[in-house]
Amino acid sequence: MQPIQSILETILYATNLSEMERFYHETLGLSKLGDHTDLSAGFRISDTQVLLIFNPEISATPGRPVPSHGSTGEGHIAFRIQPEDFEAWQSHLRSKGIEIEQLQTWETRGRSIYLRDPAGNSVELIDSDIWPDNRPTRKD
Amino acid sequence: MQPIQSILETILYATNLSEMERFYHETLGLSKLGDHTDLSAGFRISDTQVLLIFNPEISATPGRPVPSHGSTGEGHIAFRIQPEDFEAWQSHLRSKGIEIEQLQTWETRGRSIYLRDPAGNSVELIDSDIWPDNRPTRKD
Repeated sequence: MQPIQSILETILYATNLSEMERFYHETLGLSKLGDHTDLSAGFRISDTQVLLIFNPEISATPGRPVPSHGSTGEGHIAFRIQPEDFEAWQSHLRSKGIEIEQLQTWETRGRSIYLRDPAGNSVELIDSDIWPDNRPTRKD
Repeated sequence: MQPIQSILETILYATNLSEMERFYHETLGLSKLGDHTDLSAGFRISDTQVLLIFNPEISATPGRPVPSHGSTGEGHIAFRIQPEDFEAWQSHLRSKGIEIEQLQTWETRGRSIYLRDPAGNSVELIDSDIWPDNRPTRKD
């Protein structure tokens, strides 16, 4: 039996999927899997990854065709960007009226831009894979 | 400016990180980034992906060195497995005492095994990339 290959679906939650679709598609530039429904919005990230955003008021309802799930509160996700685009991403976000909550330079290598999506989820754009195989130096 | 490359960090939440570490490391076979702390547990998934599990009672505290986040309720994640291992994964889970909540065959292609992690998050093991670039046929 071969090990788990990858994470295909990463999930965030929000009750207003229209504004989430605008943010992730128009501001962050992600490709839509299609137009959002009442239940979910979806985005293709790479050959091996999609981002799905669910309305927990619907997805947490018992008795759905598939197992229910749904959380509330501020989630977190970190996207990889290219190091040479670190400044360009900041300018782009500011031009779209997005507040940059924090800029962070990591101890070993790598820099992050922190912002919030319309639902308050903490979105990080990070320019390196800062996670070693052993104990991470990072504490968030 | 190049587009977002990938999702580096996918996040789940749980208050008992010891049992989450046991489940994701020993039952699902993920490689640990290190031993868990009070704040988080981390796992290397692939060259481009890590899974981080945070205790929201700590990660949501204001005034941390990095932006706070933390949600409650049942989250969701889908891992890719190889199609030829679909039955072997079911046997493996049962041998570990894990209840399989649902088996699902998708319309176009692909099959899923649904289970719950110790925090109640809906974990899916899926044997294909079921998401086309256009409107998905899937409704969960």
